[in-house]
Amino acid sequence: MIYLDANATTPLLPEVLEAMMPWLTGGFHNPNASYRGAKAARQAIDTAREQVAALIGAQPDEIVFTSGGTESTNTALKWLARLVGRKSGRAITSAIEHSAVLKPCETFEEVGYRLDRIGVNSLGRLDLDALRAACASAKDGGGFASIMWANNETGVIQPLAEACAIAKEHGLAFHTDAIQAVGKIPVDVRETPVDFLSLSAHKFHGPKGVGALYVRSGCRFEPLLRGGGQESGRRSGTENTAGIVGFGKAAELAKQLLDSGDQSIRTMRDAFEAKLLETITGCEINGDPDHRLPGTSHVSFERCEAAGLLILLDDMGIACSAGSACMTGKQQPSHVQKAMGFNDAKAKSSLRLGFSRLNTLEEAMQAAEAVLKAVEKLRRVQGSGVGPVTVYTP
Amino acid sequence: MIYLDANATTPLLPEVLEAMMPWLTGGFHNPNASYRGAKAARQAIDTAREQVAALIGAQPDEIVFTSGGTESTNTALKWLARLVGRKSGRAITSAIEHSAVLKPCETFEEVGYRLDRIGVNSLGRLDLDALRAACASAKDGGGFASIMWANNETGVIQPLAEACAIAKEHGLAFHTDAIQAVGKIPVDVRETPVDFLSLSAHKFHGPKGVGALYVRSGCRFEPLLRGGGQESGRRSGTENTAGIVGFGKAAELAKQLLDSGDQSIRTMRDAFEAKLLETITGCEINGDPDHRLPGTSHVSFERCEAAGLLILLDDMGIACSAGSACMTGKQQPSHVQKAMGFNDAKAKSSLRLGFSRLNTLEEAMQAAEAVLKAVEKLRRVQGSGVGPVTVYTP
Ligand SMILES: Cc1ncc(COP(=O)(O)O)c(C=O)c1O
Ligand SMILES: Cc1ncc(COP(=O)(O)O)c(C=O)c1O
Repeated sequence: MIYLDANATTPLLPEVLEAMMPWLTGGFHNPNASYRGAKAARQAIDTAREQVAALIGAQPDEIVFTSGGTESTNTALKWLARLVGRKSGRAITSAIEHSAVLKPCETFEEVGYRLDRIGVNSLGRLDLDALRAACASAKDGGGFASIMWANNETGVIQPLAEACAIAKEHGLAFHTDAIQAVGKIPVDVRETPVDFLSLSAHKFHGPKGVGALYVRSGCRFEPLLRGGGQESGRRSGTENTAGIVGFGKAAELAKQLLDSGDQSIRTMRDAFEAKLLETITGCEINGDPDHRLPGTSHVSFERCEAAGLLILLDDMGIACSAGSACMTGKQQPSHVQKAMGFNDAKAKSSLRLGFSRLNTLEEAMQAAEAVLKAVEKLRRVQGSGVGPVTVYTP
Repeated sequence: MIYLDANATTPLLPEVLEAMMPWLTGGFHNPNASYRGAKAARQAIDTAREQVAALIGAQPDEIVFTSGGTESTNTALKWLARLVGRKSGRAITSAIEHSAVLKPCETFEEVGYRLDRIGVNSLGRLDLDALRAACASAKDGGGFASIMWANNETGVIQPLAEACAIAKEHGLAFHTDAIQAVGKIPVDVRETPVDFLSLSAHKFHGPKGVGALYVRSGCRFEPLLRGGGQESGRRSGTENTAGIVGFGKAAELAKQLLDSGDQSIRTMRDAFEAKLLETITGCEINGDPDHRLPGTSHVSFERCEAAGLLILLDDMGIACSAGSACMTGKQQPSHVQKAMGFNDAKAKSSLRLGFSRLNTLEEAMQAAEAVLKAVEKLRRVQGSGVGPVTVYTP
């Protein structure tokens, strides 16, 4: 199988699994205990905290380990909503956020907050003027903003520094869902002074079930999960030592690759797209070409339903997605595609391919070949009036 | 090292790690995607759900996977508080709950709920009359109760069926923190019809970072973590397949051991205690002898600070605790010991030992020997006026 769904999740790097193994075996002790084994676990967690902090230019004590991206976004957003209070509360986000941001924000709307979903242009980039207007009309301290760093469907990188600066100018606290950005492009909280940032290990070859919330030093913060007082009282629950250590190792390896300037992921993705454009008529690459994650390809094929393509590609041993993983099985265009102004037909005929460091150029070429075959086959079938193919329900 | 801190955490059983490995390697796919690998992960999660459900007599769709015990208790309690509303809201719990229940309840108290902490007798068992009085004075639907199934420090098993019945008689929703009970004694939600039950994998040889919330079918419930809609919309976040599979396997193995009627854990613990009582003067076993977890031993030693004992025992290769792991490094008596009416001296001179299926009778005997030596040594030192030993800060 050729795995091209890195935006959904990524395999552990062998070094990550290796780093985790001692903590899944002999190093099982509760890091809160007092004996030797416990202290070793505590130390391993501290090292991981340094590794994760280094990846985003943070101080180790600004990192709060969580169970994943969704816990991080929910923790940050619920706290921000509570901090702001409900009467004048204003939650400013974008129309293209992941549901891990949109859903919590919708619950705020239900209890009386005003929710703004700032739009994007047809290339999927945030409308900064609209953001400025929304922030200006939120009174000082009367709201918060949450804008994603990079979009999970299109890979479009948002103007985060500008968005953060606008929110700050107007006295609003700022959170970013950087779950798709961290480990793939440089993300630095010194250069882009967000207050809160969510990240998730499994998007860059770390384990599932572990993530982090960056909390800027000096920012007021109260936890979502209360109990034993772990994570300096900011997130209770017995620490998942193995998961945290794997996260740390994945962060270290991601940083090394980023620092090296290696361009091989971008090269594969670009070669894949070039080949599609060259061989398939009615094929279009979506998303701002100047601001895209190096490994993401979001492509539309005229007269070709993604649902059918996915089945054919699965049969040919290519694993990829239509829109985000969470949308699988849903026949509607995603809210991201709607926000970019795609018509229904285009929205339904788009694939998302996610390349990672574990892919090769050869795989990218084979995948392009397979997509060509699948598109041709489907167009023959659909052209003959058989109509849309129904997607598997997962 | 002889590990006797099973109430803090337990090692993975080899079979559990083996069950996890495929999902840490080739089976890394996001279970929400549509291709084959994804469906295999989905299936593995479904199997684990059946295994966990079977352990507590639940239906699979009553199990919501979480990141651990603390997430489960916080999810249940926050939802119950929201359901009840704040004006007449009454949160009824016990004085001996784990902080994963007490801390969230204290935040409810801060915003206007009335919080009752029902006391226990000197053997650590819940005062059912006091519970009944509190429930009676909470109007129908105007409150909820949360009582732990077994205590983490003393191992005392609570009169759960009675407590649940009392709450139900008065129309109150009922949650139980069964994190120390599940996998160690029979826990069956058909026999004891709680509405919500929290459990955690790592307390019975499953992985850290995974747990579950049992939600009785038909009970109203809203999630704490919102996003991609995983767990049938009840807990969002990319599933930790390996962790969930390990949890399922641990549940299966725990059920097998429970069903077999094997008494070896109890035998070790009892032999350990018999040896202490026989060899050490001023030694007392705490907690209701008729209602204790088979593997927990909570013992006090006159004129002997636990802080010092822990250091000596660590040096002798015995890993155990004073009170709960979360209390390590704190010199105060725990709230559990206070609720049982221990005086300060006794509270400070208590150890908790937790035996599991991975221990042997020989280890239990060696540990008793080591405790004897440590007590003798410490009494010599303390007797000579050197004063209390300061505990390591972890
Ligand atoms: C942009 C974005 N935000 C949030 C999430 C949720 O992260 P997780 O599933 O790790 O909780 C994801 C991935 O699923 C994502 O791509
Ligand atoms: C009774 C009890 N409740 C809750 C917890 C918290 O569980 P976890 O640390 O797995 O989140 C524990 C253990 O730490 C416990 O013993």
